[in-house]
Amino acid sequence: MDAIITDTYSVYFNEEGYRALNQHLKKERYSKLFVLTDENTHRDCLPVFLSSLETNLEIEIIEMEAGEVHKTIDTCVQIWHALSELGADRRSLMINLGGGVVTDLGGFVASTFKRGFPFVNVPTSLLAMVDASIGGKTGVDLGNLKNQIGVIRQPEMVLVIPGFLTTLDKRQLNSGFAEMLKHGLISSGKYWGDLKDIKVNDPLDPFIHTSVRIKNQIVLEDPTEKNLRKVLNFGHTLGHAIESHFLEKGEDKALLHGEAIAIGMILEGFLSHRVSGLGLHQLEDIKNTFLERFRKVDFTEGDKQAIIDLLKFDKKNTHGSINFVLLKRIGEAVIDQQVSEDLFREAFAYYED
Amino acid sequence: MDAIITDTYSVYFNEEGYRALNQHLKKERYSKLFVLTDENTHRDCLPVFLSSLETNLEIEIIEMEAGEVHKTIDTCVQIWHALSELGADRRSLMINLGGGVVTDLGGFVASTFKRGFPFVNVPTSLLAMVDASIGGKTGVDLGNLKNQIGVIRQPEMVLVIPGFLTTLDKRQLNSGFAEMLKHGLISSGKYWGDLKDIKVNDPLDPFIHTSVRIKNQIVLEDPTEKNLRKVLNFGHTLGHAIESHFLEKGEDKALLHGEAIAIGMILEGFLSHRVSGLGLHQLEDIKNTFLERFRKVDFTEGDKQAIIDLLKFDKKNTHGSINFVLLKRIGEAVIDQQVSEDLFREAFAYYED
Repeated sequence: MDAIITDTYSVYFNEEGYRALNQHLKKERYSKLFVLTDENTHRDCLPVFLSSLETNLEIEIIEMEAGEVHKTIDTCVQIWHALSELGADRRSLMINLGGGVVTDLGGFVASTFKRGFPFVNVPTSLLAMVDASIGGKTGVDLGNLKNQIGVIRQPEMVLVIPGFLTTLDKRQLNSGFAEMLKHGLISSGKYWGDLKDIKVNDPLDPFIHTSVRIKNQIVLEDPTEKNLRKVLNFGHTLGHAIESHFLEKGEDKALLHGEAIAIGMILEGFLSHRVSGLGLHQLEDIKNTFLERFRKVDFTEGDKQAIIDLLKFDKKNTHGSINFVLLKRIGEAVIDQQVSEDLFREAFAYYED
Repeated sequence: MDAIITDTYSVYFNEEGYRALNQHLKKERYSKLFVLTDENTHRDCLPVFLSSLETNLEIEIIEMEAGEVHKTIDTCVQIWHALSELGADRRSLMINLGGGVVTDLGGFVASTFKRGFPFVNVPTSLLAMVDASIGGKTGVDLGNLKNQIGVIRQPEMVLVIPGFLTTLDKRQLNSGFAEMLKHGLISSGKYWGDLKDIKVNDPLDPFIHTSVRIKNQIVLEDPTEKNLRKVLNFGHTLGHAIESHFLEKGEDKALLHGEAIAIGMILEGFLSHRVSGLGLHQLEDIKNTFLERFRKVDFTEGDKQAIIDLLKFDKKNTHGSINFVLLKRIGEAVIDQQVSEDLFREAFAYYED
């Protein structure tokens, strides 16, 4: 598959990715490599990854604990200390080998250690391949507030190796698939249709490539999220609040990111129907498509109230009002839609119906 | 005094500064203002500052504990939580009212909260006026390692109000004066001479202006410190290690930043004499000038060893070698000078002599 090349960084696929990284390591005179993993990618992905690296540089492995609950400043502090002790400097390179938690956190750690040194993302989850690892958003959670602390900084390059997906369970794969479906909803009705038709054993590679291309185009036109890039937040305003809320309730209740935004997309689909003209037939299509893949979650009255309360902390709000990205139709999103709180209850009722 | 205007931000002086800030607040549609102070600037500077502000925006005051020992990630976490609770968003403005600890830490907090919102620096110490508040270096210490964590991000503007200096004691003033003397050493023999001639009651305003202009010129030619900007680190490689070491020994032993780099400049002046051709007469001039203003510090054998050990953590090192900025003569610096560890002992001996 063709590399997706931009003026600031490039996304390479499969063997071409390893070739590009090895060339990059030969060209840049890095002082040392640091590979950030969690215990899962350390076991499942690191051996394959290291065997494909061709370099004489010293390589240090840093392992963090897996899971969203460890996407915290405390974990950053541990890694910053490790980097200090292992002699990292501004000419070091960090390679983030993992899912979205590892690429988001690793990117932030590298961007802030000694005021920033370069990093490469090697996403190992579907979610990270099509979303987290590209676009330059780095960061960690603050308490139960998702991605509250971070910076925008682009990686040197991104390597997408779909072979790593064989290490994921079905729930993890589905979580990433939710973001791919979002790419269809916000920018291509045809892609949405293609994704719905995928059979269990179809290779995902060409679809991953399409999703990366869609996300990349959007990000490059508006890297700092002043306008267009906001469309990527479809499903995420309510989705993030849902994710934060269940994260706070404890690990056994926690939803994966894609599971939360799948619900967010149904709810915000309903808001789109009421506010921005999304047709009822398309709304039903969205709801049915997600409910085929994601089990329905039961919300108590307390859950719903807590989620609505959390919305006001969402980082996409300005001047205290609640801003949404909504759909005009499948394949076309519209930003900066003001939605009144009354509709949230109706949206939950539609989801539960 | 004329404002110093660049393409990314401007430095304004005195009344013109307040006028510029008030105009800026009228033009930009900020959602809310946050003023970060410490207990000293809260008491001594905030009332004057607020009385000069003309805005209808809501203003929240956030106070941190004063002093370098609080320039930590823990303090950032407290302020990030406060910002969340007080409803800060990406359209908020942070105003950092304080010395270098407040402007460095406040700039980092703003640059990383929700992936960054704008900030203005209002330095209240001489050191912050001529150094910390301009140039876009933000950050905090990690353990005893100075400024280990941070980003480079420019403020919207800097307001220099020399009237705030009346709240400083002589030791604090001297600390800032050390950076001004450095500006002379690295870029203007004439300015160095002028500074040496200042009498106790002479107004500092024109000299502050000259120092800001010198620093600004250097920073703008090389904002991310790839080459030229490194000259600003003269005296800082050993100076930072000295500062970190005494900070670790506890607050009663701690040196102010300028006190540490004054020693650093004598030591690195000696290295310049031995490595880069600084004449003995000029070296003596440097030593005498600093020792007139800064009391001599006693270093034990253990102190010296610990300081030399700390050097390898200094963020200006790459590939493990020890890089210095040295002087060819007073008024001209040269970067990327490799110095062997043997000379450090001799440099200390020259200082102690």
